[in-house]
Amino acid sequence: MPDDIVIAPSTLRDFVAEALRSRGVPTSDAESVSALMVEADVFGYGTHGVFRLRQYLARLEGGGCNPAPEVTVAHETVATALVDGDNGLGHLAMATARDLAIEKAREAGIGWVGVRRGNHAGPLALYVRPQAENGLLGMAAAVGSANHVPPYGGTDLLLGTNPIAFSAPSTGPDPFVFDMATTVAAMGKIKTLLQQGEPMPEGWMVGRDGKPLTDPAQKSEGFLLPIGGPKGFGLSVAIGLLAGVLNGAAFGSDVVDFTSDTTSPTNTGQFVVAIDPDAFGIGEDFGETASRVFNEMRASSPLPGHEMVRLPGDGKTVAAQARRNEGLKLNPALRRDLNELAMNCGLTKPFPDAAAV
Amino acid sequence: MPDDIVIAPSTLRDFVAEALRSRGVPTSDAESVSALMVEADVFGYGTHGVFRLRQYLARLEGGGCNPAPEVTVAHETVATALVDGDNGLGHLAMATARDLAIEKAREAGIGWVGVRRGNHAGPLALYVRPQAENGLLGMAAAVGSANHVPPYGGTDLLLGTNPIAFSAPSTGPDPFVFDMATTVAAMGKIKTLLQQGEPMPEGWMVGRDGKPLTDPAQKSEGFLLPIGGPKGFGLSVAIGLLAGVLNGAAFGSDVVDFTSDTTSPTNTGQFVVAIDPDAFGIGEDFGETASRVFNEMRASSPLPGHEMVRLPGDGKTVAAQARRNEGLKLNPALRRDLNELAMNCGLTKPFPDAAAV
Repeated sequence: MPDDIVIAPSTLRDFVAEALRSRGVPTSDAESVSALMVEADVFGYGTHGVFRLRQYLARLEGGGCNPAPEVTVAHETVATALVDGDNGLGHLAMATARDLAIEKAREAGIGWVGVRRGNHAGPLALYVRPQAENGLLGMAAAVGSANHVPPYGGTDLLLGTNPIAFSAPSTGPDPFVFDMATTVAAMGKIKTLLQQGEPMPEGWMVGRDGKPLTDPAQKSEGFLLPIGGPKGFGLSVAIGLLAGVLNGAAFGSDVVDFTSDTTSPTNTGQFVVAIDPDAFGIGEDFGETASRVFNEMRASSPLPGHEMVRLPGDGKTVAAQARRNEGLKLNPALRRDLNELAMNCGLTKPFPDAAAV
Repeated sequence: MPDDIVIAPSTLRDFVAEALRSRGVPTSDAESVSALMVEADVFGYGTHGVFRLRQYLARLEGGGCNPAPEVTVAHETVATALVDGDNGLGHLAMATARDLAIEKAREAGIGWVGVRRGNHAGPLALYVRPQAENGLLGMAAAVGSANHVPPYGGTDLLLGTNPIAFSAPSTGPDPFVFDMATTVAAMGKIKTLLQQGEPMPEGWMVGRDGKPLTDPAQKSEGFLLPIGGPKGFGLSVAIGLLAGVLNGAAFGSDVVDFTSDTTSPTNTGQFVVAIDPDAFGIGEDFGETASRVFNEMRASSPLPGHEMVRLPGDGKTVAAQARRNEGLKLNPALRRDLNELAMNCGLTKPFPDAAAV
């Protein structure tokens, strides 16, 4: 039975907003953040949606995150800006950055908006998909919220998974929306294998001896590997420079592990970009040309052992609509977790007790 | 003896410029392109320097490349531009794009300049390093000049190695300069293994059966693999959209293989970005903060089996200066090739016959 349990996005949003309010977040901020958190689940980014509520509440409670920030624009040109998140919930600064980037792109062809003093903001897709839905191209990146990765060939944890995301309009049902970590595997996937008692494939992690590490129980003894070895390392450093150093945000040894530390400001750095194809003379034809190439790719005969070729973002529009209509399926562990958080916050549990087992 | 043979950069530049002139390239363009081609060798990008002269001459001769282009700015805002390369040698449009991006960054905080109707332009490092040397951050990318890569899980060659590059200033001897293809291996490396009769490591290519391909002699039977599987694929598509489709340049099935086709315009697409840290409030402190993180990384104890950690770009400044002072060492095959090209063009051979064996 529990697998059939769904929750309406609006119910979940209300609950998350209430929980944030109970920790001092003003109503309008709580509603903005809860809408984005639930949107992450609606689009299938389950590891970066309401699953993170426990962490956010802990950091609000511990003083690591400012419940009532004043998000401001610290520096600005016609095409760039630096948003100061005032150490509030990361979604607030990133949504501001995204909207400002879009506005500047309409004006100057491009908007490149950095964030300093931000926090974990959910999946980057939230901050690039709207560009594509509005006929623009999008890009975003972040300094990861914990250092799990050494520099290539080294042993000190000085890099996060430093994700980067891109988006572009198409004339098909789905825009191109691509959101990746610069490591082969995300820590979340490794935690899942640990729960399931399964080994990791070689190439995800190495131990301190430099040899492949495949036992997920030993994850703290080893290092996540960047994609493509030195290439993923270089890309991750480039993201750290553009999202961190350029914005006066943390990068390297000053990155705070937001999963274990609830009391220190993280000074998380991110950036969001919007580009208007009108400025390059292609305008609305962009989507048509992009779709022509996407369709060529989808029509390519699959390699043996592979399904049909899919582009990043394919199927998300229909899947999101289905979840909006039919409700969200959250796994039992998450349902239980949200019910527990409800109790901690003095709120009505979002799930009947029978559902949270 | 042949291994000690060096050629002064200025001698090589003069020869390359003469060769280009002999194929109808006006003097000032020939000098600009030859300077950039030799600069690639000076900085150690040997596969993308004068090694490419034969190809460029063949395309000039075959009519695929316009010897006397008029490079123009087709569209422009305060922060963006689209440069039309008029199907000339790719270096001309890319150098124009780079200089314009730098100019716009000083004005608007960022300059994002696309190129259409370009051609192969050598290593992207040429178009990002100057930003870093002038206190700016740089980024550049290109649609690869031949399709060697299928979409992830597919079998049709619709993607190139689609490279991307980043740069940033530092207070150390070397700026951060990072230039990567989005495939695990470049075709050039595979050709080298073929010459040496050595197998490829698993993970570089797969055959049409989806299984690892390790015999470099069978390279035409298989596909280059993107870094990180679907991640490298997504990144490569994103680059194709930003460098190709956005600029009205080729991407997908309309990419011309410039190594085999000497008669068709390639409509190569690229972009160059410059970002001014002054616009983000950090200004000249950027280099100091970046160097702090770089030094933390360099100080990290190496993994067993690895050398000291190096950042992309480390050592290039000193190595380039040494090559400027002491001359360039080109391998015997390249020396022979340049001598042959000299004969074809009716020019004095750049190397004594004894050196080209």
